[in-house]
Amino acid sequence: MIILGIDPGYATVGYGVIEAQRGKFRVLDYGAVTTPAGLDFSSRLQIIYEGICELCDRFKPDAMAVEELFFNTNITTGIQVGHARGVILLAGHQKGVEFNEYTPLQVKQSVVGYGRAEKHQVMEMTRHLLGLEKIPRPDDAADALALAICHAHSAKSNLLKVKL
Amino acid sequence: MIILGIDPGYATVGYGVIEAQRGKFRVLDYGAVTTPAGLDFSSRLQIIYEGICELCDRFKPDAMAVEELFFNTNITTGIQVGHARGVILLAGHQKGVEFNEYTPLQVKQSVVGYGRAEKHQVMEMTRHLLGLEKIPRPDDAADALALAICHAHSAKSNLLKVKL
Repeated sequence: MIILGIDPGYATVGYGVIEAQRGKFRVLDYGAVTTPAGLDFSSRLQIIYEGICELCDRFKPDAMAVEELFFNTNITTGIQVGHARGVILLAGHQKGVEFNEYTPLQVKQSVVGYGRAEKHQVMEMTRHLLGLEKIPRPDDAADALALAICHAHSAKSNLLKVKL
Repeated sequence: MIILGIDPGYATVGYGVIEAQRGKFRVLDYGAVTTPAGLDFSSRLQIIYEGICELCDRFKPDAMAVEELFFNTNITTGIQVGHARGVILLAGHQKGVEFNEYTPLQVKQSVVGYGRAEKHQVMEMTRHLLGLEKIPRPDDAADALALAICHAHSAKSNLLKVKL
């Protein structure tokens, strides 16, 4: 199955596309959709919408894994990222891609096996699991790949459950 | 000019469409786009997106006036409304409608002339300014009409400035 992981934001949306088959992962692409700070907010949302639509068209993912938003500190940032995330969910819905969300804790548990893992441990494990030489850049792309792995693990266990 | 006022939400999006000409207002339509609570969130966003696109197609507004989000209490609600608002801005952008945002304070000042006005005063003044017999229902629609009036007042003063 092909999984599109997405780390939402309004300036930078990280994405990572992996193919998961028989417990093995293959990276198809990763990177970031970025929007210029000077542009009006609606146009930035349009760029994000187009970027996600394009990724869905190009890779035809079976599922999307998007980070769940938790903001304890900056409510304004939280609301702005919420705008971007809304547009991401809409694009996925319009392209018929199944939507899943995971908390940072779930990602850490799934990728490293430990919910309190440090960011660099998650990144290193992501690199290792995907057989990459270097940790993917930018960080948002690495986070997105970790989300995709998290969904692969969870989807796998669902599949196993069905087989029992 | 035709103005589409929007009170954003994810369960209920209030809207109000007015025509403002030579200081006079005419109501073209008002109401709410509602989404069922049981539906998955992406589908609810899709309903909101389609609703706004349809309003833009039907009334071809010159401008959209959307309430600015301020959340001091419930961050989760704030983020969810942020998702819906993102989709609303995207729809307006795709339909080429100019986007404007106003705070509740600006709406009160503009409609009632007093920033600390009570909600029922804003509603009563909205009813009066629009020449309606009753206060529009639901509340979200009345709020959306007040936003449209707020933009008409502000656009008018902009026009006056240009003429000086």
